[in-house]
Amino acid sequence: MKRLAILGSTGSIGQSTLSIVEQFPERYQVAALAAGRNLDEVFAQCVRWRPRVVSVATEELAGQLAARLRQAGVNGINVVYGTQGTVTCASLPEADFVVSAIVGVAGLEATHAAILAGKPVGLANKECMVAAGEILTRAARERNVPILPIDSEHNAVHQCLRAGVAAEVKTIWLTASGGPFRQLPLDQFAAITPEQALKHPTWVMGRRITIDSATMLNKGLEVIEACRLFNVQPSQVRVKVHPQSTVHSLVEYVDGSILAQISVTDMRLPILYALAWPERPSSGLTFDLAALRHLDFEEPDFERFPCLRLAFEAAEKGGAHSIALNAADEVAVEAFLESRIPFMGIPRTIEKVLASISEAHPTTIAEVLATDREARQTARTLLQ
Amino acid sequence: MKRLAILGSTGSIGQSTLSIVEQFPERYQVAALAAGRNLDEVFAQCVRWRPRVVSVATEELAGQLAARLRQAGVNGINVVYGTQGTVTCASLPEADFVVSAIVGVAGLEATHAAILAGKPVGLANKECMVAAGEILTRAARERNVPILPIDSEHNAVHQCLRAGVAAEVKTIWLTASGGPFRQLPLDQFAAITPEQALKHPTWVMGRRITIDSATMLNKGLEVIEACRLFNVQPSQVRVKVHPQSTVHSLVEYVDGSILAQISVTDMRLPILYALAWPERPSSGLTFDLAALRHLDFEEPDFERFPCLRLAFEAAEKGGAHSIALNAADEVAVEAFLESRIPFMGIPRTIEKVLASISEAHPTTIAEVLATDREARQTARTLLQ
Repeated sequence: MKRLAILGSTGSIGQSTLSIVEQFPERYQVAALAAGRNLDEVFAQCVRWRPRVVSVATEELAGQLAARLRQAGVNGINVVYGTQGTVTCASLPEADFVVSAIVGVAGLEATHAAILAGKPVGLANKECMVAAGEILTRAARERNVPILPIDSEHNAVHQCLRAGVAAEVKTIWLTASGGPFRQLPLDQFAAITPEQALKHPTWVMGRRITIDSATMLNKGLEVIEACRLFNVQPSQVRVKVHPQSTVHSLVEYVDGSILAQISVTDMRLPILYALAWPERPSSGLTFDLAALRHLDFEEPDFERFPCLRLAFEAAEKGGAHSIALNAADEVAVEAFLESRIPFMGIPRTIEKVLASISEAHPTTIAEVLATDREARQTARTLLQ
Repeated sequence: MKRLAILGSTGSIGQSTLSIVEQFPERYQVAALAAGRNLDEVFAQCVRWRPRVVSVATEELAGQLAARLRQAGVNGINVVYGTQGTVTCASLPEADFVVSAIVGVAGLEATHAAILAGKPVGLANKECMVAAGEILTRAARERNVPILPIDSEHNAVHQCLRAGVAAEVKTIWLTASGGPFRQLPLDQFAAITPEQALKHPTWVMGRRITIDSATMLNKGLEVIEACRLFNVQPSQVRVKVHPQSTVHSLVEYVDGSILAQISVTDMRLPILYALAWPERPSSGLTFDLAALRHLDFEEPDFERFPCLRLAFEAAEKGGAHSIALNAADEVAVEAFLESRIPFMGIPRTIEKVLASISEAHPTTIAEVLATDREARQTARTLLQ
């Protein structure tokens, strides 16, 4: 029986994780839930799952939640809040496994705390690895704590890596749907509207990640994540456009063999993989291989998708550059969604921020967060 | 340093194995060579590789080879012959690894001897597994002897199986090029000539295996081989037609993940994999994933390729039925190549032989060979 701390319990990964707990009651229990501001949902989750601890965004929300739980006659749940609250959940002695699914750098301190507490982490938060991958993976290696990736590409890579050892890896190939503008000619990129960019062909996602998918910055963040998670050089990571999103990624070994992972596009699969690793429980999630007819692949176009190039450059430099790439993109995407800059203004903004950033390599989470704030400020100033 | 006994050294797998030894002199040495009747080639191999023992088909050939070696001043090579000669090579105390690449049931006794002597086997001979898989794998399990498959499909499966454990395997998917008649309408199968059938779109191979590829009986033999090698039920093995022969096979796990193996179609890759396992040495054999554009898949057509259905049925029954499938096919293919029966006469002959065979389960290699002889005789009688 594994007792889970689920950070980001009301988000889509958090909810999918709870559906896995529902499906496998003999394997998983809920020890802690950390949510943000969705009080109705986290209240319902507390009633259903009876965690030892629950965390919400603020002291005020914590008070409201505690009152509702009292009224409902639900006792014995410790209600905490804020960053300290998520850290409490992540390092709870009763938890055996931490699902890190808080979006953005907000999840960073709790993820770090989980690793410091020696708890295996299922990581759905790619910003953590982009901004602080060097710090997190070093801490994990020192404590022999496994970090199991929950996004579909890195989860696929993790599976393919089981067919060899680290020194035998030649190249990690991350697949990319290519986003809505995969086939759009370059001269039409200037006229892309937020409405067009928000239509993603394959996945339904949040607004920022949808735009990041359209610029392919999302794939760039995944390149950096792959470098950190699997301890490879940026030159060992490549992107392969694959519109069907059937092959979730591939690993090429030095002997010439390439392993690929195929599955349905359902986040429950990588979540279950992370929770159960090294076991593979029967999931009921079946890809219909009998119906498979075609798989298409293309090379990525770095001219139409300069964010991808910027990400490889930031991966190479690491440290502050990786942090700034993510931070500047978030600010630029916001500006694009508010129609303050054009689509190609996103990479231009990131490039300018990266050009102004120091070569520093933060060694603490506090330094990472400070660099993140600085980069956001630089981006905002640029956009004014 | 691994010292190899190479059974079938003058055949294509044998020669590729020696090219691997050439490429990795720090890893591999030649301890024994077993050839057939190609005296010039085996003489040259003896001069180059100086094995401790060499075996040829007959006493007469052994005498000739010994004389030529003496004349050439090559001393210290023990020249043996016949089945006993291959058994001597396979069980040589100085050999650490046996490459079993003698075509047909001729390699059976030597392969069995290698396993009984506790030597890891690289298996390129699929008839061994089809005819005596139950005996060979039981012996291997009892002695904890690994059998590493050298044909590309089972080698791919072996690689994909590293991403999980046996109990987690749902289905093994063997890919098939589909052969030259993949798209031929059923009503034209009656008119297929040996010349048409001998043109294989992807691989250059021997005559029998080329016809077996055209009837898909070859894939059927591989289905049986997969059942025996990986200890799965016939219902857990499926065939997927994949004309590009880029994905060499796939393994579907119960959690819904499918692992696939991709590589160049070069036999040196599976040979090196088998020799080096569990290591993956850098081989220089690179599949150009950057150039990959399309992969196509189809379901196999059991109506146009009844040999595939017959093989699944024989896999289910096992024992004498597997042996007879292979034996009857060899006789029927010979008759087809001599234009004595039409193309669809091959499955008809096999089906009749299978219908007349007992349900026996041979438990010794001698019984297997006797059953094989009987089935050949039955097929020959039928065809007269």
